[in-house]
Order: sequence, then C-alpha cells, then structure tokens
Amino acid sequence: MNLSIFGLKNIPYLKEGDSIEKLIEESIKTSEFFIEDNDVLCIASKVVSVAEGQVMSLNEIQVSDVAKEIHRNIPRKDPRIIEIMLNLVNRDLSRLDIKKNYIGCRLENGLKLTSGGIDRKSVDEVFLLPNNPDASAKRISEYLKKSLGKNVAVVITDSDGREDKRGATQVAIGIYGIHPLRKTEVIDSQGETIKFQEETLCDMIAACAGLVMGQRGTGIPAVLIKGLDYKWFENTSIKEALNE
Amino acid sequence: MNLSIFGLKNIPYLKEGDSIEKLIEESIKTSEFFIEDNDVLCIASKVVSVAEGQVMSLNEIQVSDVAKEIHRNIPRKDPRIIEIMLNLVNRDLSRLDIKKNYIGCRLENGLKLTSGGIDRKSVDEVFLLPNNPDASAKRISEYLKKSLGKNVAVVITDSDGREDKRGATQVAIGIYGIHPLRKTEVIDSQGETIKFQEETLCDMIAACAGLVMGQRGTGIPAVLIKGLDYKWFENTSIKEALNE
Repeated sequence: MNLSIFGLKNIPYLKEGDSIEKLIEESIKTSEFFIEDNDVLCIASKVVSVAEGQVMSLNEIQVSDVAKEIHRNIPRKDPRIIEIMLNLVNRDLSRLDIKKNYIGCRLENGLKLTSGGIDRKSVDEVFLLPNNPDASAKRISEYLKKSLGKNVAVVITDSDGREDKRGATQVAIGIYGIHPLRKTEVIDSQGETIKFQEETLCDMIAACAGLVMGQRGTGIPAVLIKGLDYKWFENTSIKEALNE
Repeated sequence: MNLSIFGLKNIPYLKEGDSIEKLIEESIKTSEFFIEDNDVLCIASKVVSVAEGQVMSLNEIQVSDVAKEIHRNIPRKDPRIIEIMLNLVNRDLSRLDIKKNYIGCRLENGLKLTSGGIDRKSVDEVFLLPNNPDASAKRISEYLKKSLGKNVAVVITDSDGREDKRGATQVAIGIYGIHPLRKTEVIDSQGETIKFQEETLCDMIAACAGLVMGQRGTGIPAVLIKGLDYKWFENTSIKEALNE
C-alpha cells in the first residue's frame, strides 16, 4: 500500500457562516490531482469551528470561585477559559485532569483533550470544538458526494500532545465513511496467529495529515490522503475508537 | 508540500544478528521508487530489536515480591514482564503508572511507553526496545549514505496508545538526520504573529508510517516518506522532543 498526501490549496481564511464544504470543493476542482472514491479528507477542527460559529467571546464569561481556585493552581490558563471547561464537563471536576502546567478535560463524548480542545483565537476570543464533529464530517462528505460524485471519508482533526513529549500532533475528533479502528491479525514467524491487534487508524490518519497541514497560519487546513486501503463504512463515529 | 509514502517490500522475517540496514538497502534497490536526499525512513523498533538481539527469555526471570504485588493489581500482565519493567526503571516505582488494566513506564531516556515498550514475542520470550534507538537510527542512516549515497533521516517507531482511545498508533523512540520538533509561527487573520507553536514532528512521521506498516505480521516493517520539507540535522536525539 502506497499513499499520496496532498495539501488542499487556496482555502481562504474562514469567517462565521462560510461553507467549508464549498471552499473544499472549489479547492479540489482546481487542484493538480483527481479526487477518487475512498480518498480520505482530513480537515482541521478550527476551520470547521469557525464555519459553524463555534467562536466565543471571553468578555461575557462570569468566572466562578471554582474556576478561580483552579486558576491559582495553573496560573498560565485564563480563568475565563477554565470556566468554559467547567461547563464542558458539566462542572464534574473528576473529568478535569490538572497537573503542573497541564489541564486536560474529558468531554461528554469521551474524548480527552488538552484544555478541552479550547484554543485562543485572540486576546478576548476562543475557538470551541465543532459541536458534533461526526456530524460535521458526514455533512462535508455528503456535500462532496453530491457535488463531485465521489465517496470521500472525512476525518476532523485537532491538535493534541502526549504527556512525555513536547509539542502537538494531530488526533481525530470526528469521522465519517471509515471505521476509526483497524484490526490486524498478528502472525508469528511460524505463521501462527498470536492475537488480534487494534490500531487507532483515525489518529494515524490525523497525524499523517498534520505533517502537511502544519499549524494555524500555514493556510493548509485540509489534506487529502490517497491510496489508503479501507472499506467504506457509513455508520461510524469517533466514539467507536474511545475507551470505556 | 505533497508527500509520497512507500512501504518497503521483501524484507524477510529477521533473526538475531541479521543486518537490518543491509536488508533495507536491498529492498530499496529493488523498489519501484528512487531514493533521494531528505527522504525519511521509518523502521519498526521490533525488527531493530531482533537484529540487535534485544529478545529476552522469560524463563530465567526471578519474580520479586514487588512484581508479584503489582501483578495482583493488574493480573493480565505477566509478573515476569513486570519484573523486567521494574529493572527498566531501576526499581523506582514513581516511574511506573498503573491504572486499571494499564501499566505505563517512564524509561531512563524520558520516554513513557505502555509496558515500557516490552512486547511479547512468544509464550516465553519478549522483545525489549533497542538499547539506544538514536544510535540505531544513526547507524542505519550512515550505512545507507555509504551504500546508496543519499542522506536519509531515520525514525525508529514503536506502537503506543492514548489514554482516551482504543488501539495503538506509532510514536518515535529514536531519530537521526532530522530535528524531532517542528516550530511554526502562528499568524492570525490580520497577519500578526500570535505565538510560536511546537509540533511533535517525529510522532507525526511515525504515525504516518504506521498507516502503511500496519502491525506485526504484515511484513512491512519499514516505510519511506518522500517530499517532507525539513533541514538535514545530524546532532539530534529523541530527547529533544521529551518533556523535562
């Protein structure tokens, strides 16, 4: 299996209400590659959030005593952002993970992300994650099926890191058209099956896209992966990749 | 930046003392692509471990009381493997992370890996990680420079997962020829620099390779990534990507 990875070009900075699917369609139409069935399209959550209006002003946030207390333990994190995180976990502190400079947050759908996926847009604004990333992935895939006639799996990606490593990679937070896990039979040198191994296919796809996407400001929020061997699968959700 | 990813073919099952670099050279020579300067070669740690004799028999392990106690908390993990992990962390229990069915281990070089990267080979044998994955990466790169005349960065990868997700992805445990982090300037819509963002480039490379590698038994332990834009960098180590 050989893969080709293309960054989608000429996608402008988005603003609320823009159609991310239309901008992607236009980018694909003027690209140097042809789109085919079973290509995988990865999209940075940030542009989906903007298109869907998931941007919040910090000025209206009332900071609670609990958020102030957490902020004393982790001063680098704006107390207003902590307050939003508290709301994301329905004020269930057991779903926050605070150590040193790190604050993680287990979202309602089971994803655990640094700062709950909240990312600063400007001094007084933040991006929240798309409200339902699986639904966003499905909407974009169905739009492309209609407009370009191809079945393209969609993975919504977000920046996140590992405890032991510096920096961020990309992980999957929403998916459509492909199962988020890959199951492989592990065979030993005598040809015997030892076990079945599960791979977090969705996260490997996201990280692979991350190589080309880079971070905000590089202007490549969408990446197409061609050549991945997978079965088209509509009834899917990022939840199938989550523990518990 | 567009990438092409090729799985290296016809690499046989390795045994101790085999030259992984020679097998890779032969695979590249008979492949459908040309090798070029600044290609990135990813190799599964398992085949490096085998070639370097990092396979251990479990039958000689004396299980200590501490290992037995840990095994009572996490029964699915063979107490002999727990004993090896205890040795990997110099019996410093604060470097083990035990919860439910999970046991993680912070190695001497700072990497934190599930089961300390120990993986079962058969009922009575395990693979340990290569002794010095950076040195393995360097040795393989220098061999290819000599034999094929090209500067190819090498990333040694290992399977590992995330707390919130099922299954495993691939992460980098050793590196040569490329800096393990990528720094990007984040620019907002007005063209202002907001911050510098650090990406775990080495892990995105490893995960990308993992898409093609699959797991043990698929016969593709090495993957070549072409087209990645990076500066050749010799004085590098996975340690530069590690926290603390």
